[in-house]
Amino acid sequence: MIDQALAYARKNAPAFLDDLKALVRIPSISTLPENRADMLRTAEWLADHLRRLGFDRVSILPTAKHPVVYAEWLKAGSRKPTLLFYGHYDVQPPDPLPLWKTPPFEPTIVGENMFARGASDMKGQLIAFLKALESITRTGSLPVNLKIMLEGEEEVGSPSLRAFMGEHKDLLACTYCLNGDGGIQAPDVPSITYTLRGLAYFEVRVHGPAGDLHSGEFGGAVENPANVLCRVIAGMHDRQGRVTLPGFYDQVRPLSKKERAEGKHALRTDAWWLEHTGAPALGGGEGGYTPTERATARPTLDVNGLLSGFTGEGSKTVLPSMAMVKFSMRLVPDQDPAAILRSLGRYLEAHMPPSVTWELIEHASSRPAIVERDSGAVRTASLALEQVWGKKPIFTRQGGSIPVVGLVQEILGVDSLLLGFGLPDDNLHAPNEKLHLPNFRRGVETFIRFLHLAGSST
Amino acid sequence: MIDQALAYARKNAPAFLDDLKALVRIPSISTLPENRADMLRTAEWLADHLRRLGFDRVSILPTAKHPVVYAEWLKAGSRKPTLLFYGHYDVQPPDPLPLWKTPPFEPTIVGENMFARGASDMKGQLIAFLKALESITRTGSLPVNLKIMLEGEEEVGSPSLRAFMGEHKDLLACTYCLNGDGGIQAPDVPSITYTLRGLAYFEVRVHGPAGDLHSGEFGGAVENPANVLCRVIAGMHDRQGRVTLPGFYDQVRPLSKKERAEGKHALRTDAWWLEHTGAPALGGGEGGYTPTERATARPTLDVNGLLSGFTGEGSKTVLPSMAMVKFSMRLVPDQDPAAILRSLGRYLEAHMPPSVTWELIEHASSRPAIVERDSGAVRTASLALEQVWGKKPIFTRQGGSIPVVGLVQEILGVDSLLLGFGLPDDNLHAPNEKLHLPNFRRGVETFIRFLHLAGSST
Repeated sequence: MIDQALAYARKNAPAFLDDLKALVRIPSISTLPENRADMLRTAEWLADHLRRLGFDRVSILPTAKHPVVYAEWLKAGSRKPTLLFYGHYDVQPPDPLPLWKTPPFEPTIVGENMFARGASDMKGQLIAFLKALESITRTGSLPVNLKIMLEGEEEVGSPSLRAFMGEHKDLLACTYCLNGDGGIQAPDVPSITYTLRGLAYFEVRVHGPAGDLHSGEFGGAVENPANVLCRVIAGMHDRQGRVTLPGFYDQVRPLSKKERAEGKHALRTDAWWLEHTGAPALGGGEGGYTPTERATARPTLDVNGLLSGFTGEGSKTVLPSMAMVKFSMRLVPDQDPAAILRSLGRYLEAHMPPSVTWELIEHASSRPAIVERDSGAVRTASLALEQVWGKKPIFTRQGGSIPVVGLVQEILGVDSLLLGFGLPDDNLHAPNEKLHLPNFRRGVETFIRFLHLAGSST
Repeated sequence: MIDQALAYARKNAPAFLDDLKALVRIPSISTLPENRADMLRTAEWLADHLRRLGFDRVSILPTAKHPVVYAEWLKAGSRKPTLLFYGHYDVQPPDPLPLWKTPPFEPTIVGENMFARGASDMKGQLIAFLKALESITRTGSLPVNLKIMLEGEEEVGSPSLRAFMGEHKDLLACTYCLNGDGGIQAPDVPSITYTLRGLAYFEVRVHGPAGDLHSGEFGGAVENPANVLCRVIAGMHDRQGRVTLPGFYDQVRPLSKKERAEGKHALRTDAWWLEHTGAPALGGGEGGYTPTERATARPTLDVNGLLSGFTGEGSKTVLPSMAMVKFSMRLVPDQDPAAILRSLGRYLEAHMPPSVTWELIEHASSRPAIVERDSGAVRTASLALEQVWGKKPIFTRQGGSIPVVGLVQEILGVDSLLLGFGLPDDNLHAPNEKLHLPNFRRGVETFIRFLHLAGSST
């Protein structure tokens, strides 16, 4: 049965590409009001596609802004897992237009790549998955139960998703989530992202004198809230670059020997970090870890913004009445944003002098995510990738957070498996976005094999 | 001769007040283009007044913006000192107008006070001096040589004064400068300001990655310039609130036992500082000194401005490429801004990590000023004040800098004696500025006695 599905996919590769081109031609830019009709047209195109694949309850469900496309196929039986596929059908705006070498919404194939906005992020991944479904359903039957949720607001921060998922919690219930909005390390390096960092984002405002004062008349007599702010922020790290908040590392899972050894062969060398950041030199950060480990497997505390007093040209001798910092911690498994907030509060209470008042504002928080490497989902994905690429995938940690992974955990109570085939040089969110076509074909094949394995592994 | 001058002043007090009212009625607001004609009218009014007093070389000398009124009387002979009187004829704008209880440019007497913009800062002081000259010249002859320089840009930071003084260096040569733009501590507390703090104002820009980075993908891998900035600024103070820059205190004149004892009886109590700053509590600053000592007799280092990354509403997970701080040191005798700059450079070189680049910009500097308390000028002023008030003046230090004092020192190579009669509650630069009329009359008398004593003490 799998051989027939794979043969179908190979035979129909040109038609798959045509459908991808058709989808890419619709400029589904979620942030621009003038593309609202295109957004709806894209949702309808996808719903129509799912209907033709034999999916049930295909619907375009409203949210406060752009609708969610939902469909399900639950005929595999209750002994089979139910996967929830997450994807998004919106794209980034193409600006700056003059930097595009080909029209952003007219897919253009050059060599092994197809250039277009959304080609990789993530219409290519979406079509790869739909065409895997087509290959399976045209030659047999889906071996797992499947729910599909495609949102239209990922590129604007998914503002409606929490409310939508809360409202449709029962509809979306599943064994785990298959998130197709991912990538691999290089065309010849299959990989699985198994952890994401969480986030705890704060703002602190330190208030000193009632109004700005003349720094000559008053400097020295009263506390300067900007000096206090610098001292309190500086005190959050020790000389080894470790965060000093009480208990900050208590819940951190140490990197295993195996993980550290894998890291030695990772693609993100020191040279890679220097090239991709333009930093004058590496350094800073927590001692004893490589830059890649620090950016993916270790928690951090970064200042995101500072504002106080006079910031114009030249000089003004002001003793500011207020100083503000925005800063955030990236959290790793199993740190808990609520515990971090409590720890920060204790630190601030201990370190803010009585000569100032202060406010602590929590702006955002998300839990770190991990898919256990020895879980069924990861083993299945690993095997599927190995069958297609002919080599075992590497396991990677991602430094950023993916909000939907946190929402799925929070609202549906399940983990997410990230499985997509975008490449680091696909120019996501930038001019000349591209899709690597051999990877697209391998993606279709990987999804076919993955679904097959997922259906037989229980 | 002095008795006749004093009698003249008492007899003509109502006429003096009329002239003050006439001068105050001209809205000489230096910052507003629409008052340019008023500025010139004020300069002409003063020049005319000086001509009628018998002054020579009375001139309205151009600068890049508002002219300087100059006049001289050099007939006391070469054995007598030559004083340069400094004053300014411009005033602050009256905004916010709705808060004025009387029209700002229609002098209104209520009880012992006359309300008007410029009444105290410094047309009242200017007229007091001119009327002292009138009282002396109408009843005898000036006992000292006198040059008068009245600028029109003090309230906008004296931008033309350096060039003007450089150009007219020989014309302005003098024994010392008598600066009339000062005040005393309270109506019944005559005082002499004998030190001013200097200033060394800097900006430091710390550069990390080439552009702003995503704090999730890159946080931990590369140094965050805003974290570095906080650490470097925080490191400029130790736990005792002392500045850590190498050699920072080497040239600081310690407070003498006498000065510290005088401070115990000063009017600026802890309650005064709390009331006048609105700070939640006193604290911070250099240990072992009172707030008044810290604000006037000890050097300080205050952050004046901070800017980095995202400062809008909400959150943005940015690892900023740059962080900026403006900060300044207030210097006390005998600290040298040039030495401070070198010390700061050494500190930054030692504490900035190689993972960032940085720039140091010097925005402004002025030397601290001191008039020796046992100098002839101070003894003369002290005696004059005592004769008028019936009590010895107290000696005070001022926390701010007065740029013209630095310019006089730098260009003419002489000290400045601050002698004026404004009060701390005169609402300078604020609505309902006022002049305390008994103090105005005592000011006339003090200037008469001072000039008399200055002419006889050599």
